[in-house]
Amino acid sequence: MNRIQSQIKQLPLTNVILQDRFWSEYIQLVRDVVVPYQWEALNDRIPGTEPSHAIQNFKIAAGLAQGEFHGMVFQDTDVAKWLEAVAYLLASERDPELEQIVDGVIDVIAKAQQEDGYLNTYFTLKEPGKRWTNLAECHELYSAGHMIEAGVAYYKATGKRNLLDVVIKFADHIDDVFGYTPGKLQGYDGHQEIELALLRLYDVTGNEKYVRLSQFFLQERGKDKNPHFYDVELEKRGNTTHFGRWMLDDKTYSQAHELVTKQDRAVGHAVRFVYMCTGMAHLAAVTGDSEMLEACKRLWDNMENKQMYITGGIGSQQHGEAFSIDYDLPNDTVYAETCASVGLVFFAQRMLMLQPHGRYADVMERALYNTVIAGMSQDGKSFFYVNPLEVHPQACKANHKYHHVKTVRQSWFGCACCPPNVARLLASLGQYVYTSREDTVYANLYIGGEAKLELAGAQVQISQHSNYPWDGDIYFTIDTDRTAEFTLAVRIPGWCEGASISINGDDQPLTAIVVDGYAMLSREWKPGDQVQLVLPMTVERMKGHPLVRHTAGKTALQRGPIVFCLEEADNGPNLHQIYLLKDAELNTELDVSLFRGVQVIKAAGVRQCSDNWGDSLYRRNPKVEEIRSELKFIPYFAWANRGEGEMRVWIDEK
Amino acid sequence: MNRIQSQIKQLPLTNVILQDRFWSEYIQLVRDVVVPYQWEALNDRIPGTEPSHAIQNFKIAAGLAQGEFHGMVFQDTDVAKWLEAVAYLLASERDPELEQIVDGVIDVIAKAQQEDGYLNTYFTLKEPGKRWTNLAECHELYSAGHMIEAGVAYYKATGKRNLLDVVIKFADHIDDVFGYTPGKLQGYDGHQEIELALLRLYDVTGNEKYVRLSQFFLQERGKDKNPHFYDVELEKRGNTTHFGRWMLDDKTYSQAHELVTKQDRAVGHAVRFVYMCTGMAHLAAVTGDSEMLEACKRLWDNMENKQMYITGGIGSQQHGEAFSIDYDLPNDTVYAETCASVGLVFFAQRMLMLQPHGRYADVMERALYNTVIAGMSQDGKSFFYVNPLEVHPQACKANHKYHHVKTVRQSWFGCACCPPNVARLLASLGQYVYTSREDTVYANLYIGGEAKLELAGAQVQISQHSNYPWDGDIYFTIDTDRTAEFTLAVRIPGWCEGASISINGDDQPLTAIVVDGYAMLSREWKPGDQVQLVLPMTVERMKGHPLVRHTAGKTALQRGPIVFCLEEADNGPNLHQIYLLKDAELNTELDVSLFRGVQVIKAAGVRQCSDNWGDSLYRRNPKVEEIRSELKFIPYFAWANRGEGEMRVWIDEK
Repeated sequence: MNRIQSQIKQLPLTNVILQDRFWSEYIQLVRDVVVPYQWEALNDRIPGTEPSHAIQNFKIAAGLAQGEFHGMVFQDTDVAKWLEAVAYLLASERDPELEQIVDGVIDVIAKAQQEDGYLNTYFTLKEPGKRWTNLAECHELYSAGHMIEAGVAYYKATGKRNLLDVVIKFADHIDDVFGYTPGKLQGYDGHQEIELALLRLYDVTGNEKYVRLSQFFLQERGKDKNPHFYDVELEKRGNTTHFGRWMLDDKTYSQAHELVTKQDRAVGHAVRFVYMCTGMAHLAAVTGDSEMLEACKRLWDNMENKQMYITGGIGSQQHGEAFSIDYDLPNDTVYAETCASVGLVFFAQRMLMLQPHGRYADVMERALYNTVIAGMSQDGKSFFYVNPLEVHPQACKANHKYHHVKTVRQSWFGCACCPPNVARLLASLGQYVYTSREDTVYANLYIGGEAKLELAGAQVQISQHSNYPWDGDIYFTIDTDRTAEFTLAVRIPGWCEGASISINGDDQPLTAIVVDGYAMLSREWKPGDQVQLVLPMTVERMKGHPLVRHTAGKTALQRGPIVFCLEEADNGPNLHQIYLLKDAELNTELDVSLFRGVQVIKAAGVRQCSDNWGDSLYRRNPKVEEIRSELKFIPYFAWANRGEGEMRVWIDEK
Repeated sequence: MNRIQSQIKQLPLTNVILQDRFWSEYIQLVRDVVVPYQWEALNDRIPGTEPSHAIQNFKIAAGLAQGEFHGMVFQDTDVAKWLEAVAYLLASERDPELEQIVDGVIDVIAKAQQEDGYLNTYFTLKEPGKRWTNLAECHELYSAGHMIEAGVAYYKATGKRNLLDVVIKFADHIDDVFGYTPGKLQGYDGHQEIELALLRLYDVTGNEKYVRLSQFFLQERGKDKNPHFYDVELEKRGNTTHFGRWMLDDKTYSQAHELVTKQDRAVGHAVRFVYMCTGMAHLAAVTGDSEMLEACKRLWDNMENKQMYITGGIGSQQHGEAFSIDYDLPNDTVYAETCASVGLVFFAQRMLMLQPHGRYADVMERALYNTVIAGMSQDGKSFFYVNPLEVHPQACKANHKYHHVKTVRQSWFGCACCPPNVARLLASLGQYVYTSREDTVYANLYIGGEAKLELAGAQVQISQHSNYPWDGDIYFTIDTDRTAEFTLAVRIPGWCEGASISINGDDQPLTAIVVDGYAMLSREWKPGDQVQLVLPMTVERMKGHPLVRHTAGKTALQRGPIVFCLEEADNGPNLHQIYLLKDAELNTELDVSLFRGVQVIKAAGVRQCSDNWGDSLYRRNPKVEEIRSELKFIPYFAWANRGEGEMRVWIDEK
């Protein structure tokens, strides 16, 4: 296996302690509310919501309870993602009581595991003997991947091998079943996830067979097209389908239409796409496969530059929860699943492991501060699956084109992928802040806290604090056990103009030292060195690319990484009647009444009146009365926390 | 039965000969192409299209062929609507060869009719014994209605009773089956049509039982809600459904959620709605039922003022081919079925029989000159079902939200309702031009030709000629067998400002004589009197009501009754980048190369360029280069006759 020369590393979560005005409360919410709430949900104890049955399925498979399997084919993953989230929380703060619950669940899971290592309650309980006969639809390897991620995370957090051993046994079983050796199954899952999970298993075990297996799945994908693997399977099992033919017929849905290294556009189901790319990028980082690296860059380019909402949402159509064509980004019939933006953060993080370029961190930040946290309510108890950029609640109810767009967050879903996905991302946020390569540490995100790592042979602790994202002044303090020469690379975000840096009060000219979006502060660092990064945060009037039909002539306000929106609660109904004045000052102020205290933008606008229009739906050259009106924009992530109402991100200017 | 005092009459088609530069070619196309083509389609002789099987079903039911029923439950109506169209053509020009074909078809239909009068090939062949068990879904009375309309039309055109006798026997059978008498079925069809058809049967037979039966169906609709008639049926037949539950569960879909006289909004399936309203208005005209009249006005108001596209399209959502909420009129995910606009013309015509108000004729004209004829290609061989106001072909293919929007007209549909509906409307256009009441004749539409009628005891012939809709100068010549005092009421369209009229060269002051949109020219008319109506046709910049989100800030050009659009063929791709300059002159010119020669509008605009934008999807304060560009607008109805491309009606101004 070819190793690449300088591997970029994520810092272990146990080496990072976050203490951030903005994010710590989110993480506390995950600890105090989301995780306990989801635990109740997994155990079918939330009144008024559809029972999950996820824990019960494991108990039945373990022989600890009687009954039948209930739920989706991938119901196990709700437990796995919950376990993973809990593991991340334990990494930063051990909690014996919580660990006892987790260990109890792991006991049940271990008992549900079959002799040969196989672990999947759907096939064990509902379709015994049908294992690995419908990879295209039944998410067996996908579910395996999530359990592997949980096992790895729990081991890294606690050092306990209980779940790790289970997933190693399972991964070894998968390795026995799949491969090129005659008699082995030569196929791949309809929902990518195993690929990235096996690489994480490699990270903790060092066992290269998991790299080879991940590589196998990625290399097989989209390979034999005549007949296609899905169709071979389909015929073998007598043409039965689980979800329906279209998913099998449309090979682009699961990115199985073409070899992954030949793909050049983001297509199909958005979550599948970013999970696949996460695996591809991770694999390229491990193996140094340049063809894979180029494919990752190509796919990233297409996604970022042609198919991403300004909020970091991806997947613009409901059908197939999928990408559309380039520049087709409708704001109202949008999909932009929360999980897809979570997966986008994973993909970005793996790209940062391949190549330290600010663009990946920029997108990561865009997704995090906008769509990902918009997915969760202020109280952590309800979630959006779909994240629209324009909402008219009555139309959403009356017109089926918008029916998938919910105007109020839902407590738990029949297919409950988003809540635990948000939880596991927030709980592991610490590992996204820094990456390191040799004697360089990259500050990718501006989230306060402390990180420990070794650089140039020294033990280094970096403290970061700020009032980000509301304020662009970010302070770093370097502590080392001795003077050491290394580079602190601080990201200069793409949204920022006029950044400045001082070290111990001395201004640092940036022109010469900014490389690929990072200011490379190379010097002999002494204990107590202070770095101040100043990122001027002006409110920007953002425009969409001229090829985007749905932003034509419109403006969105952005300040720092935060995208803003108008909400009915502040601006009254009929937001489409509102124009932001082109010369209006855009003033920020703190609104302590909203969410946990957020900055809002106030600006002069006009509102068209319908009062004197009359009855006619269409009129020639009408005089439309306009009233000057103060507009209030709130951060997009904070929308829909004050009852149901209209919202829009892109507005007209005048 | 209460008669209203002054009944407004339609002129019989046999009394009207159209000779019009614009419409005669359409009607000739129906005669030369559409009707023969549809005859081939009905006989399954169009290569490459799904066989209709409609004639074959009748042959099998008649015992003249072997085989099984194929097609939709309402497949018979394709034959009925074709027969009706042919009948209208024969009314203005007899054609022995065509009549021979028709009489042949009628022979088959008569043989397919059952002993008791029942006539429906689906139930006769496929579900014998199941008659009238699923009115909610299976269109039995709907199909009956179409056959009745054909029978009436053929009788009126030719005086032949062959089909009329068949449908009278059928109507009498229906009257035996349905009604309040104990033992009779107390219900109504899921798709309105029988109501309007029975009133047309009454018009030719004078038999009031058809009025009572129509009234029965309208009075029953939405009456018993607990349990609802559909649910009673459903339970009786063991809970089987034909199309699926939603159609039964959503009572608004077929306007069966409420008594028709209590309904106050256009809801549900748009075609069903306008067919129902047509029946309601006709019934109110016959019976003088003021509650019914008020309901018609209320429903019309809602439809016209809150739910109609500028093109006269109605039904803004695909799901249920239905109305949405007020002011929800998306241009790209639109439905606006051709048939719904055809039905809208029917509804408008019946409203003109209730109350001579220009608004009804205005909407009739809007639908006719825009959506109805947009439904058909220039060669009469292909048809739109859905009539979008904004199309981006690649997006229509890639994003399922627009999948129902076809960018190229289709040759024939599996559910082939629109082509024969357009054909029967165009073939009967003559009867929409004038209505009369006592000694007043109303000129509702400006379509050239001659009409004969009796007014004030005199035999009057009105000749009309013009170059409408391209020119607003309309000439009438009055011929009478003697001097007579009557009123010629000429409509002053709502789109027109500054109309003027002269009689024999003498200007007529209009202020005092315009009543409800008609200039009432009352005088002693002499043979040879000349009326010149001048309707100034300036190109108007139309705006949508401030409550319509999808037209906010946009403009549509309209000249006379014609709505214009930009097409890619003239203006290149990315039409959303185009702005019409606010102060641009809007110049019309004749384009002989397009369609059969149409007026186009040329105007100065600017086009934003994407060339220098760069890769980023979003930019702050970008300088977007603009190129001045001459824009060319073509009539909406003429779009999509020059290959596939973008189109939009509503554009931005600058």
